[in-house]
Amino acid sequence: MEVLVPFSADRPKSRLAEFFSPDERESLARSMLDDVLRAVTGAGGDPRLLSTEQLDPPVDHPVTVDSRPLTAAVNAVLAEREPTESDPLAVVMADLALATPPVLGRLFDADGDVVIVPGRGGGTNALVVRTPSFRVDYHGLSYLDHRESAAAVDAAVTVFDSHRLATDIDERADLVELLIHGDGAATDWLREAGVTLDIDEGRVGVGRSDN
Amino acid sequence: MEVLVPFSADRPKSRLAEFFSPDERESLARSMLDDVLRAVTGAGGDPRLLSTEQLDPPVDHPVTVDSRPLTAAVNAVLAEREPTESDPLAVVMADLALATPPVLGRLFDADGDVVIVPGRGGGTNALVVRTPSFRVDYHGLSYLDHRESAAAVDAAVTVFDSHRLATDIDERADLVELLIHGDGAATDWLREAGVTLDIDEGRVGVGRSDN
Repeated sequence: MEVLVPFSADRPKSRLAEFFSPDERESLARSMLDDVLRAVTGAGGDPRLLSTEQLDPPVDHPVTVDSRPLTAAVNAVLAEREPTESDPLAVVMADLALATPPVLGRLFDADGDVVIVPGRGGGTNALVVRTPSFRVDYHGLSYLDHRESAAAVDAAVTVFDSHRLATDIDERADLVELLIHGDGAATDWLREAGVTLDIDEGRVGVGRSDN
Repeated sequence: MEVLVPFSADRPKSRLAEFFSPDERESLARSMLDDVLRAVTGAGGDPRLLSTEQLDPPVDHPVTVDSRPLTAAVNAVLAEREPTESDPLAVVMADLALATPPVLGRLFDADGDVVIVPGRGGGTNALVVRTPSFRVDYHGLSYLDHRESAAAVDAAVTVFDSHRLATDIDERADLVELLIHGDGAATDWLREAGVTLDIDEGRVGVGRSDN
């Protein structure tokens, strides 16, 4: 299955600004992208990067450069590709650093004209599209919006329930999940940056040794 | 499968104190318990409540009253029950208001001497135990601790990946998940209490109309 991986190279992970410098955030975002691409490949998917600009170092996969916002860029690919049952397209966000080949394999195998993976907070972290007329809108409560727009084109919707895929790495609390459940480049990056789990009165957070 | 549902009737949901009065938190906690018991029954499980005190109104299931802290109370049941492959025991937290019969059915069917459902933040939201010597310790990073203690008694561990079951309803951000994904008594309770989704610059939170 072709798997589109949208990536924004422009000021990535700004919600982690209290914790990391701009250069560090860029480096962490790239580590997460590498983890996602590896997991997609491991699950038998064919990744195609949809990036706001060419990456340096480049990735070893096809790249479409589109500087437009996420929704417009993904919809341009959907319009051009016209996914079908026999030629589906998946869309997997580049910050799903907890994605593994087994969970992505189950996702790619899930039935449905549109398979939606909700992210924590009402977002859409991944999709499998098997119908030509479905379009995305990533703004706000996109999970509910995508259910509605799939219904509007008479697409059968499946919701895919996964903590790994619901966890996009966006804010400080998400780093806890990455340290507990991750074992890829992004988790290594965090550990090398001195970020560790921090338990305070039974609640788990993260701290940074050199901060 | 017998399913132990631990419930603390003493000052429940204190992390939601900024949002709800003590009476409201008690009422919300009871709604969530009712949702969990219904989901367990719907999945073919036999719930047994493990409560710090008798409930009013009572629940329509067997109740064990144990006023000790969670870990001691659950371990007392494990020691008495001595779960096995043919006579397993599940432990499902009472605040998993997003639990549904299908996801619990998949959990009960998952292989493993010890099946662990991680909660967001390193906790353990549910377990299936099929070995007599495994004991729990819910303090702190219990997910990692439970993996270790299962390995220490040579139990085969399975990790069960579910956003619904990873989401214990503990803090304000969890109410977002309940409003988006829930359709039981707790979600009704929230809506009647005037709690609604609130979108601000693309980020989703909750607000309360009468606050």
